[in-house]
Amino acid sequence: MLDVVTIGETMLRFTPASDQTLEQAEYYRVDTGGAESNVAIALARLGWKTAWISRLPDSPLGRRLAGRTRAHGVDVSRIIWASSGRVGLWYFEPPVPPRPGQAYYDRAGSAFSLIDPDEVDWDFVRTARWLHLTGITPALSPQCRALVHHALEEVANAPITVSFDVNYRSRLWTPAEARAALEPILHRVAMIFCPLRDACILFDDAGDAESVARTWARRFGARVVVITAGEAGAVAFDGTAHFLTRRYPVQVVDPLGTGDAFAAGFIGGYLEGGTGTGLAWAAGMAALKQSYLGDAPWCTREDLLHLISAESTGIQR
Amino acid sequence: MLDVVTIGETMLRFTPASDQTLEQAEYYRVDTGGAESNVAIALARLGWKTAWISRLPDSPLGRRLAGRTRAHGVDVSRIIWASSGRVGLWYFEPPVPPRPGQAYYDRAGSAFSLIDPDEVDWDFVRTARWLHLTGITPALSPQCRALVHHALEEVANAPITVSFDVNYRSRLWTPAEARAALEPILHRVAMIFCPLRDACILFDDAGDAESVARTWARRFGARVVVITAGEAGAVAFDGTAHFLTRRYPVQVVDPLGTGDAFAAGFIGGYLEGGTGTGLAWAAGMAALKQSYLGDAPWCTREDLLHLISAESTGIQR
Amino acid sequence: MLDVVTIGETMLRFTPASDQTLEQAEYYRVDTGGAESNVAIALARLGWKTAWISRLPDSPLGRRLAGRTRAHGVDVSRIIWASSGRVGLWYFEPPVPPRPGQAYYDRAGSAFSLIDPDEVDWDFVRTARWLHLTGITPALSPQCRALVHHALEEVANAPITVSFDVNYRSRLWTPAEARAALEPILHRVAMIFCPLRDACILFDDAGDAESVARTWARRFGARVVVITAGEAGAVAFDGTAHFLTRRYPVQVVDPLGTGDAFAAGFIGGYLEGGTGTGLAWAAGMAALKQSYLGDAPWCTREDLLHLISAESTGIQR
Amino acid sequence: MLDVVTIGETMLRFTPASDQTLEQAEYYRVDTGGAESNVAIALARLGWKTAWISRLPDSPLGRRLAGRTRAHGVDVSRIIWASSGRVGLWYFEPPVPPRPGQAYYDRAGSAFSLIDPDEVDWDFVRTARWLHLTGITPALSPQCRALVHHALEEVANAPITVSFDVNYRSRLWTPAEARAALEPILHRVAMIFCPLRDACILFDDAGDAESVARTWARRFGARVVVITAGEAGAVAFDGTAHFLTRRYPVQVVDPLGTGDAFAAGFIGGYLEGGTGTGLAWAAGMAALKQSYLGDAPWCTREDLLHLISAESTGIQR
Amino acid sequence: MLDVVTIGETMLRFTPASDQTLEQAEYYRVDTGGAESNVAIALARLGWKTAWISRLPDSPLGRRLAGRTRAHGVDVSRIIWASSGRVGLWYFEPPVPPRPGQAYYDRAGSAFSLIDPDEVDWDFVRTARWLHLTGITPALSPQCRALVHHALEEVANAPITVSFDVNYRSRLWTPAEARAALEPILHRVAMIFCPLRDACILFDDAGDAESVARTWARRFGARVVVITAGEAGAVAFDGTAHFLTRRYPVQVVDPLGTGDAFAAGFIGGYLEGGTGTGLAWAAGMAALKQSYLGDAPWCTREDLLHLISAESTGIQR
Amino acid sequence: MLDVVTIGETMLRFTPASDQTLEQAEYYRVDTGGAESNVAIALARLGWKTAWISRLPDSPLGRRLAGRTRAHGVDVSRIIWASSGRVGLWYFEPPVPPRPGQAYYDRAGSAFSLIDPDEVDWDFVRTARWLHLTGITPALSPQCRALVHHALEEVANAPITVSFDVNYRSRLWTPAEARAALEPILHRVAMIFCPLRDACILFDDAGDAESVARTWARRFGARVVVITAGEAGAVAFDGTAHFLTRRYPVQVVDPLGTGDAFAAGFIGGYLEGGTGTGLAWAAGMAALKQSYLGDAPWCTREDLLHLISAESTGIQR
Repeated sequence: MLDVVTIGETMLRFTPASDQTLEQAEYYRVDTGGAESNVAIALARLGWKTAWISRLPDSPLGRRLAGRTRAHGVDVSRIIWASSGRVGLWYFEPPVPPRPGQAYYDRAGSAFSLIDPDEVDWDFVRTARWLHLTGITPALSPQCRALVHHALEEVANAPITVSFDVNYRSRLWTPAEARAALEPILHRVAMIFCPLRDACILFDDAGDAESVARTWARRFGARVVVITAGEAGAVAFDGTAHFLTRRYPVQVVDPLGTGDAFAAGFIGGYLEGGTGTGLAWAAGMAALKQSYLGDAPWCTREDLLHLISAESTGIQR
Repeated sequence: MLDVVTIGETMLRFTPASDQTLEQAEYYRVDTGGAESNVAIALARLGWKTAWISRLPDSPLGRRLAGRTRAHGVDVSRIIWASSGRVGLWYFEPPVPPRPGQAYYDRAGSAFSLIDPDEVDWDFVRTARWLHLTGITPALSPQCRALVHHALEEVANAPITVSFDVNYRSRLWTPAEARAALEPILHRVAMIFCPLRDACILFDDAGDAESVARTWARRFGARVVVITAGEAGAVAFDGTAHFLTRRYPVQVVDPLGTGDAFAAGFIGGYLEGGTGTGLAWAAGMAALKQSYLGDAPWCTREDLLHLISAESTGIQR
Repeated sequence: MLDVVTIGETMLRFTPASDQTLEQAEYYRVDTGGAESNVAIALARLGWKTAWISRLPDSPLGRRLAGRTRAHGVDVSRIIWASSGRVGLWYFEPPVPPRPGQAYYDRAGSAFSLIDPDEVDWDFVRTARWLHLTGITPALSPQCRALVHHALEEVANAPITVSFDVNYRSRLWTPAEARAALEPILHRVAMIFCPLRDACILFDDAGDAESVARTWARRFGARVVVITAGEAGAVAFDGTAHFLTRRYPVQVVDPLGTGDAFAAGFIGGYLEGGTGTGLAWAAGMAALKQSYLGDAPWCTREDLLHLISAESTGIQR
Repeated sequence: MLDVVTIGETMLRFTPASDQTLEQAEYYRVDTGGAESNVAIALARLGWKTAWISRLPDSPLGRRLAGRTRAHGVDVSRIIWASSGRVGLWYFEPPVPPRPGQAYYDRAGSAFSLIDPDEVDWDFVRTARWLHLTGITPALSPQCRALVHHALEEVANAPITVSFDVNYRSRLWTPAEARAALEPILHRVAMIFCPLRDACILFDDAGDAESVARTWARRFGARVVVITAGEAGAVAFDGTAHFLTRRYPVQVVDPLGTGDAFAAGFIGGYLEGGTGTGLAWAAGMAALKQSYLGDAPWCTREDLLHLISAESTGIQR
Repeated sequence: MLDVVTIGETMLRFTPASDQTLEQAEYYRVDTGGAESNVAIALARLGWKTAWISRLPDSPLGRRLAGRTRAHGVDVSRIIWASSGRVGLWYFEPPVPPRPGQAYYDRAGSAFSLIDPDEVDWDFVRTARWLHLTGITPALSPQCRALVHHALEEVANAPITVSFDVNYRSRLWTPAEARAALEPILHRVAMIFCPLRDACILFDDAGDAESVARTWARRFGARVVVITAGEAGAVAFDGTAHFLTRRYPVQVVDPLGTGDAFAAGFIGGYLEGGTGTGLAWAAGMAALKQSYLGDAPWCTREDLLHLISAESTGIQR
Repeated sequence: MLDVVTIGETMLRFTPASDQTLEQAEYYRVDTGGAESNVAIALARLGWKTAWISRLPDSPLGRRLAGRTRAHGVDVSRIIWASSGRVGLWYFEPPVPPRPGQAYYDRAGSAFSLIDPDEVDWDFVRTARWLHLTGITPALSPQCRALVHHALEEVANAPITVSFDVNYRSRLWTPAEARAALEPILHRVAMIFCPLRDACILFDDAGDAESVARTWARRFGARVVVITAGEAGAVAFDGTAHFLTRRYPVQVVDPLGTGDAFAAGFIGGYLEGGTGTGLAWAAGMAALKQSYLGDAPWCTREDLLHLISAESTGIQR
């Protein structure tokens, strides 16, 4: 009995030590992460039964990606093991002001980008009550775009909630391409996550978070729309508008995966207690995530609840 | 549907860099390992569905032990999470001749040693076709000794093969204590693993490996008895005596877990093709294991089969 | 001729890299520290002849604790080497907001907790002019509680000043237990250190630092009472109230041992120039300590005096 | 005034610590190397003026490859900086018997593979007296194959010696493809390097090293042919057969780049004193190389000459 | 055709990890840097052809200094390789408030300090259009002082701009010594860099940056005088006073080399677009430098121009 | 009450990782060692009360040398703290065949080389029963040469055994210089250690170890002469010739300090049981030392006695 299943690509991430650059460092730390597996990991750590489906080359690098994900409790038994294709990878150089951060993607031709939707075990997918997808997948290849549509079709008549995180990546496609591809998808999902900025870039929706959330709920027919506005918080509209106001002081160890932790927190909180709890958990998970090295939030449900209920932090001896 | 389930304690292992000592090193590497989880990991990596049951404190250290084991594909869903008790640990200083290796155990009072047999999900155990136990468990505490007997009782009428690795540890109990505790167990298992040296220490069996294997098969009524004699190979007696003769050149990165890899290789090979295959796989896994840092053999079934069939090793470019 | 002797337990401290967690890190840094040895180290580095007495297992880990302490110049010749017992240890995960710091103690059954007061060389203790003890020791075991009383008895008629740092640890005992154990001790010492918060928790003393210091001086008959109030500074009452007002900008590398550095600074300054100097040195040492990795303040007397007299900091080339 | 110019691809090499695997290690060491730049580096370190021409993306990773090569004294001023294309890369897991080494290439679509021969500054190439090419380049892409032929054309009428290292890579093409592509090239170069094994695989030349060297000299019209036979030494035929007999005891730190160091040593020695000196230097450089981490031999001409003339090794104090 | 040549000493720099001290750390990071080579590196990275001339022992350490400098594109072909003399070195402990940074120089007797001006290839120097020197060189030894005067003489009649960075080091000489040595030099250079504080210490010039710049331009006859005033910015006077007002938010990874990056930025900007551009580039380079580990600014011209034109920083994905 | 006192210089030792070179490595390990402090450390670890006297600059580097020595239990209270002078240092690159090891000394002008014999607390020296000196000291400076003669004078009438390790260093002086300086010293000491090779180089003594030992005992009037012949063992002549025959299999982690461990082992064994015990302990300590990183043998008396009495080595679990 599965709670949440996700489908998507996960890459190797090469990062120099935080005080060094890609050109300079003798060693790169090798992390793994992808929007969908990050969500599956976060929800598994919060106590849900989750699975992540992907396509990986049958190599030490593919096994590395699977093993690092499984370690957190995610079911990876439906990964498709391919005899060809590479693992996608990217190089990340953390920002040190005034030096900006750098991200160099090298993911073309990955085993996942060559996926055939018929390889996926859709019966397995239908044992879950929630399916989470993101806007990165349709940007990767025609096959991946077909995969998303195929997935929506497969679960259309099943009692499964589908959530979708827009996750626009300007290095992968143009706003026009993304809009054309994403619009039909957004019409078919129950829950949408989108940064206010991307809503503006992709759909010219120029209002504030609340108005965009209301507009999208109407336009796409989504049950819940969550629009995030960075420092300004977030709005979740489910017929009623809910506002995220709590802010946590954060010391950033690693900013990557924060949006995924937010989405996972929202899904988890929503399953636990509805939209309001969703926003509270989302804020807590996003804050906690930034304190961990790597894309994954290493916290537990207890850590999250402790944070949400706590006044302050310190060391207990 | 489960293939092999194991029950036992896994500890943190603290190891200084290979060229330093416990007194000297600024950092210790933190590994995890235990005879039973090592076997479950090895078999999972070879393609079997395995589970490991233990009792761990609900803490980052307990989660660490579970996560590191699950990463290899072992089902850890039946671990009993305790609100008290510590994680067992030990300090290991690798040998650098003429300086001997050092092992300092600090495992008293571990959460596992306080286990109550009724906490275990025996129905789950009975879904497996194989149960593997070792002689370390009954040495840990009265509760652990009861656990082993309870386990044998629980599976007595199920179609489950029980294997038992004697694994005598002189730091945990005397030969007399061990003999008294182990003898009734050995009478109830289908497969026994024991080093020739331990057979001599515990039971004064002074013959060679073959004669001990024959004697034990008769004395304890075991279907298969495997007696290992270090450099001299091993004998497996299943009515007929099978001899291990193949020797691999080995560069030792980490000697720990070699015996467990041997047992896992034997069980896997036995399931695959009987006693002869068992010995072949056991030898291969024991050799491969020593090339990996940590207790776990990071190889795949393909790596093992390649080794067994290969003439020599090198780099393929 | 010895200045200050301390008696107490010192533990191994396992710490992951500052950007990682206990569950995640492959390596733990191995530090050593204990309230009493920290004070002995700090005073030795400031130029006093100090000794630290403890009970350690005769093992590489015990030698490690002794050697790391001796390196700073502390006389460790009176350590009692035990053939049994373990070294106490703890795991510390530094706080990264909003993630709180974590401390997991694993010190039960340590060689020190099994100490017999008759093993201590009290003649050696009496060659010192100062004895420093803390409230951690009586919390460890009945034997340790007896040790403190024994110590007070042994030096009762010697020209030795006894200082006592309350150091309440909620993980070791309840406020009621601590109060019952500490009250008779506080009546017998010349100098008391206590955080305002602990004074409130243990004795329901709800006033400000000055009123608590005055109250305690009267109640316990102590020559000097130092009540610390964190950011709010500290008050030392020796008949007259002295206030700590100087604040140093601090970049925290490692917060552990700050209270011990404060106590050592006070004792050192008091020996040098009385209560006012004591407070000035205490503030300087507490600030410096936080800039060093590990429990020990690696500064010299010259570093301390330079800080106290300096206007600002920088690099001199 | 340039001595030797080389043209070819250089890749990032990701290597785990020598006791870990690609699946396991948290960090990969980032080295750089390619057959042609390795030769340019080795000859630069031996005192010749060398240049290396390649095509790299204008990114930190491209600059890394250039800078690491230039550090040894190689002129990299003619690198073609591309606005698209990636850096080629590969993953290397060192062998630990009985575990074989692993090499996973990920070089398709590199900036170099997209090179247009007209981008190269052939006037610059013609200022050198030696051009070194390898059989890897024509295997990379049609553009790269064209590049090799273009190069031979450009220098055809210049007083430039062209050497060519066959360097057959079975992961890049089949023997038949390689033979078809390489045969016309071999007819146009003055010096050929080839392992005996590759001569057999590609051309079915089944004799010993001497006979193959003689045959090739005749068949291709090369001035010098050097056939290496691993442990069995090497033969250089320049009308007369020269035999490599000297063997050095070697402790292998990193086997990669040994063949390139051999070729560089031969070219250097040949320039210095003819074929015999070439073989002596080749043997010395190949032995020295294996003692260095990374593809580059960090030795100097003095180190090489000292080795060649020395009886034994040790520490001089 | 060379743009800028510099002459000076470069040292090994030993630095413990940023959270440790020189007394404590088991490892020191080995960096290389010197005022003049830092300037040559920065300008090479910005796209100019630069060379650095020095005198180094013919040893791995000397080659290390040359190689690390050449890696950035600096021409090091005119380094004088000495058979005696050592490499200068220094130990640097980064500041951690309230603990001040520490710098311990150990440079006496370096190969550079023994330089004979006649060893320098002055014809090569005269192929450049700019010569940059600093006030550290004349402080090192009588030979070095002679070198500076010799250099000024050699280029006196060539179309070469000479810039001079006062760089007063109180550990090398007294203000009186420095003034006596520097004054005749300052009269002969076209561009002067000096911190306001040093102007005051050396010449008792007590005004603000603008007045000192005006005074110096008149007194020494320099074409451009740049007076830096730390947080207060800088003034460049070239007949007209130019003010540096832009301030960048900076996270300091390594403060060393900031002044050299400032000077290099000014020279580069001045060559590009005159005094105003010089100040803008100087500010940008000084800010960027502090984000890099080591003395060298690892940025490119593109990075600099992006910073100067950017509104803010972040990660682009 | 002191057993053994030593006087001499101790240096910082900079070593790259064992698979890297001085030119290449980003980090150097910082060890400390000197012939005399090595002997003091070894004997302290074996249970004797030892002291080491030296002259160090009052700096973090000086304190580092003292603290690292004191950590092992050596009394360093008589170190002379100097306000000027540097710490001697050297760079060591371990041998990796066929690449020889490299040692670059940089010790001229050290604080120790400037020692004035009158600074030493000779009364303290005379509280010991043994004084150990080496042939390195007189090679360092005229002051150091005077120090040795002064020392011999100071203890001439005290009941102190003086041992002397010839320790010829060809980088410090010529054989003729060494002979001239050492000969008068050798006439005044009770115990001499010398490698056979040095005996030949310095005194043209061309016989085997036994004949040289006999000759020297007569020539210099020494009570015991120990001549070491590397792989061929050693001879100790005390009127009777004792032969070292036991050989231990050794895996060399760090060869440095082996001779000092040998001398310390001999002195310790001699104190314990005479010449025969001295040779046995010397062989054991020399073998053990090579298994430790750094100059110091981290073993205990128990480790040594265990080795001497053991048949073989392994791991005890």
